[in-house]
Amino acid sequence: MSETSAPARFVSQERLWRRLMEMARIGAIPGGGVNRAALSPEDIEARCLLASWAGERGYAVAQDDIANLIIRREGRRADAAPVLTGSHMDTQPLGGRFDGIYGVLAGLEALEALDEAGVTTARPVEVVAWTNEEGGRFSPGAMGSMVFTGARRLEEFLDARDAAGERLGDALARTLAALPEAGRRPLNTPVAAYVEAHIEQGPILDSADLSVGVVSGIQGCRWFDVQVSGESSHAGTTPAWARRDALQEALAAINGLNTLMREADDALRFTVGRLEVQPNTPNSVPAQVTFSVDLRHPERELLERLGDRVERVCRDSMQRCTLQVRETFRQPPCRFDPEVIAVIERAARDLDMPYETMRSGAFHDALFLAGVCPTAMIFAPCERGISHNPAENADPAHLARATRVLAGAVLALAERAP
Amino acid sequence: MSETSAPARFVSQERLWRRLMEMARIGAIPGGGVNRAALSPEDIEARCLLASWAGERGYAVAQDDIANLIIRREGRRADAAPVLTGSHMDTQPLGGRFDGIYGVLAGLEALEALDEAGVTTARPVEVVAWTNEEGGRFSPGAMGSMVFTGARRLEEFLDARDAAGERLGDALARTLAALPEAGRRPLNTPVAAYVEAHIEQGPILDSADLSVGVVSGIQGCRWFDVQVSGESSHAGTTPAWARRDALQEALAAINGLNTLMREADDALRFTVGRLEVQPNTPNSVPAQVTFSVDLRHPERELLERLGDRVERVCRDSMQRCTLQVRETFRQPPCRFDPEVIAVIERAARDLDMPYETMRSGAFHDALFLAGVCPTAMIFAPCERGISHNPAENADPAHLARATRVLAGAVLALAERAP
Repeated sequence: MSETSAPARFVSQERLWRRLMEMARIGAIPGGGVNRAALSPEDIEARCLLASWAGERGYAVAQDDIANLIIRREGRRADAAPVLTGSHMDTQPLGGRFDGIYGVLAGLEALEALDEAGVTTARPVEVVAWTNEEGGRFSPGAMGSMVFTGARRLEEFLDARDAAGERLGDALARTLAALPEAGRRPLNTPVAAYVEAHIEQGPILDSADLSVGVVSGIQGCRWFDVQVSGESSHAGTTPAWARRDALQEALAAINGLNTLMREADDALRFTVGRLEVQPNTPNSVPAQVTFSVDLRHPERELLERLGDRVERVCRDSMQRCTLQVRETFRQPPCRFDPEVIAVIERAARDLDMPYETMRSGAFHDALFLAGVCPTAMIFAPCERGISHNPAENADPAHLARATRVLAGAVLALAERAP
Repeated sequence: MSETSAPARFVSQERLWRRLMEMARIGAIPGGGVNRAALSPEDIEARCLLASWAGERGYAVAQDDIANLIIRREGRRADAAPVLTGSHMDTQPLGGRFDGIYGVLAGLEALEALDEAGVTTARPVEVVAWTNEEGGRFSPGAMGSMVFTGARRLEEFLDARDAAGERLGDALARTLAALPEAGRRPLNTPVAAYVEAHIEQGPILDSADLSVGVVSGIQGCRWFDVQVSGESSHAGTTPAWARRDALQEALAAINGLNTLMREADDALRFTVGRLEVQPNTPNSVPAQVTFSVDLRHPERELLERLGDRVERVCRDSMQRCTLQVRETFRQPPCRFDPEVIAVIERAARDLDMPYETMRSGAFHDALFLAGVCPTAMIFAPCERGISHNPAENADPAHLARATRVLAGAVLALAERAP
């Protein structure tokens, strides 16, 4: 085994799992899940617990203006840009025990494994918990990583409000104040490399019984809102010729989109996840239907071509209704840094750990870090790929194995010449 | 003109319209509509106003145990079973100015026209305002006519509660107490014949520019709830092979139902009016979809045959999801009394009033009266067939013409030998 595999045997499956389960108690919901909204009392409790674990090891804890929480293990060159790892601690309203928090605790585990292996690194290594990745309470998600990397400015978000009317700026101030002993860090500081560990949230690793996915990029995405407007009328009295049935024409539009999407390869992800009917009563002809189109593919060209045809296909399905199509989000595919990918693959091979190189289907904070520093990700399998669900589950042994690869990769990156 | 057309010229378009507009102020909502829930303060106000108009003419006002309000014009034979006309005064939450109340005020107008024509009738003529036809506040609808006719017992409904938790029995007691001068009537008394005037709530008369529809029956109806269960998963990470997409399979089921329904003739009404998706977020594969099927036809056989195939057609569309189909309501077609239909047609012809003989697409209190006495209905057109909507509108001249036919029909029925 090479030198970068040294910390692997100090990665403790038991400690990692115990901490995951301790975190899962904060915001626990029925069915074994977690509801830990960003900047909520539960999020604050999780941050304090994380900071206390960091403090036990003597790591410095700091926060920046959007409350990204950073745990620092010093390197031989304190002035060198750090290697960064981590993820987020907030969850979806009906979230699970591993999404996000796994990457944060795997990062902390890697730091401690470096300690216990007696390794010093050239660069500092930092573990970050990004604020509000999920966007479930305050929209949009990935605020912490966007603001840290300068993709968006903090001021744009301060007046965002949650469903109860609370201002993000106020929740942020309360969160920052909850860790008075933590130092304050500037935004947008240099980063030598970023590696994020995360559960896959898809079924590929679990189906192949692999512990590790080396993530080479994030597929691109286009979101559309389609609104079909007809007219409500009485289901019993209105003959077919007099109907302007928005649901029937929305269904025709989705049938058309299904046909369009057959042109693509298996890497395409096409989802109508939200569909709402007005007035939505059994005995009224639907007056209006809105539905979402979520389209993803790793190839920019195909994504552009299919996305550009969504409106036309829907329009061709209209007969007596009117149509409005709005693109609500567009994210081009992201390719991670080839050198960081190679470092991770090397770390896996050094541990004789089989892996699959794959794209991420979901977004992650790494998407924004990739804009400012060499970046890649490591996936661990989750059971049947179920995520954003209280039933989200993972195997402790798989999680520890992926953490060992993370520790090796972080060590290798932190040794690279500053 | 025959004798039965005598009251027609005393039907006052101006008085009828003024009263409709006065009633429309009670529970007025934005957009020109009315929200007058059964047994609410607004309903009570409308009842008091109606009773005051009846009192001005010296008609006796009475209530039965479910607060059906009855206005009586005596006949030559006070002991003969009365001819009954009327409708309801409650509305949908987003209701219009004519649904229900038109039939009540047209009935009162007919009584006054008989007075002004100096006509006495053999039988008494009574105008009824049935309690809670809409079922919008207390479910089910048509309570007043069901309890009056013995189709259901009052005791079944007393503990029904509205959304605010109020008990129907309490709201009923308050309503009855609001008219202390009204007499008390037993339920389930003999009725010689029942004729209900109502707006069509469909587009047929309006399209044909006819003032009068002679209603020969009410089409039958079957309601189903269809539940398709799959599994939620992440829209970005879950390949097509791993999805159990409840929305896509629900759409396939509706496509199948659309094909099935093409077997029927133009009289068929097939509506999917309600469709709900869980969890209903753009980036989650839908785990569950429920949708309603509302199927109506005047022919019992066709309705049975198509309805009996709903579950099979849905089941054939399932691939990876599971299905549950539940029939929630079944009402066989109702044919009104041929003699009462003939009396109404005769009254229209006597006034040189063109009419169309048609089925009702909607339910009415007449459905339950038809079980205990010779019954039929008269429709007046409403603008573009729009009803259960604040935009519901009607032409004063059409409403008056249909009322003239009602007055003639009531007179003819009240002269028939007791």
